[in-house]
Amino acid sequence: MKKAVILLSGGLDSATCLAYAKSQGFDCYALAFDYGQKHRVELHAACAIAAYFDAKIRVFKLAIDQWGGSALTDPALSIPHYDAKQTAIPVTYVPARNTIFLSIALGWAEVLQAKDLFIGVSAVDYSGYPDCRPEYIQAFQQLANLATQYGVEQGGIQLHTPLIHLSKAATIQLGIQLGVPYEKTISCYRANDLGQACGCCDSCSFRKKGFSEAGIVDPTGYV
Amino acid sequence: MKKAVILLSGGLDSATCLAYAKSQGFDCYALAFDYGQKHRVELHAACAIAAYFDAKIRVFKLAIDQWGGSALTDPALSIPHYDAKQTAIPVTYVPARNTIFLSIALGWAEVLQAKDLFIGVSAVDYSGYPDCRPEYIQAFQQLANLATQYGVEQGGIQLHTPLIHLSKAATIQLGIQLGVPYEKTISCYRANDLGQACGCCDSCSFRKKGFSEAGIVDPTGYV
Repeated sequence: MKKAVILLSGGLDSATCLAYAKSQGFDCYALAFDYGQKHRVELHAACAIAAYFDAKIRVFKLAIDQWGGSALTDPALSIPHYDAKQTAIPVTYVPARNTIFLSIALGWAEVLQAKDLFIGVSAVDYSGYPDCRPEYIQAFQQLANLATQYGVEQGGIQLHTPLIHLSKAATIQLGIQLGVPYEKTISCYRANDLGQACGCCDSCSFRKKGFSEAGIVDPTGYV
Repeated sequence: MKKAVILLSGGLDSATCLAYAKSQGFDCYALAFDYGQKHRVELHAACAIAAYFDAKIRVFKLAIDQWGGSALTDPALSIPHYDAKQTAIPVTYVPARNTIFLSIALGWAEVLQAKDLFIGVSAVDYSGYPDCRPEYIQAFQQLANLATQYGVEQGGIQLHTPLIHLSKAATIQLGIQLGVPYEKTISCYRANDLGQACGCCDSCSFRKKGFSEAGIVDPTGYV
């Protein structure tokens, strides 16, 4: 079986992405990050999802909260309610997060001799983070092959983004087909220690809308 | 003063790079990594060099040694003697290291509102690591501006590589002009706890050759 490294936050998208990678026959190595996120409880979900799909998982400690700069990590910044009129990049943006996460995944993949990386980004129902867009992904794909021994000597690394053009509803429909236990996933930026969701942050709003549009009962536990 | 983030290992190249950034008028924020390298003593040199040039410094803990895969971090792999006939990427290559380091630097730079990043890579007297080549640097430059709020909304981030086309001798000559205290730098992959160098690894060999070709007395303390 070919190995793949899958970024796994414990949320809806990355859980679906892991299920997809498994459905494609990969031996799955999930990578989660303990990066000082306020909703650190999501890591419990990541571990539960990895176990459900019989994937290996590493939780990598990464103290990027030491310099703040995002409402997801900085105690001085509040996580705002969803605002459909927002067009600027929101304060929940974490500087360079996906680049940092993918870079570390790339290093692990080389050591594992895995040529495939998966990330569950979507550029449809999302908060406008720059590092979720197709042009960003293409640039990282190019970089990955220039950066690594695997890229230079072994014919390349493939970055997979199976959800990038899917709406949240379409992602959920795919995940239901693949057997994703969404009740175990945590998307909320303000999830409490029990994993209960606030229902009104960006992440909750996209998730709620997704279940609604997909016509599937939302299994999320709200406070 | 404009802020810049400078990757600083404590070695000859990164010390010269920091001195160069300072000479260009930047307010310098050095970033060093405690990544499980066997020659962790280089971090003492990084702190000394930062202090010498009145730069701020952060030492970022990053446990990429947890999966080994490089002679610089893996107890099971020995650091080889320099071999001029070596053409393959050597076992001291650390998977995706510069990509990981630059990504974290990129995140810090955004939070600092710094638009300039410096890395002291050279593609002349070097070990053939893929992530030191001009084409890699160009790809990271492109990625940085697609990845970040700063790139998208604030006109871009500039990645500087002042040493990329310099031989080690030319780097040393530049550094001497800039007042780099090379006796405080540590390049050796097998440096002992006192910072004394082995004299025969790749890094020592390039350094020795550099001082010799530059006609400058080598201030390195060898065992």
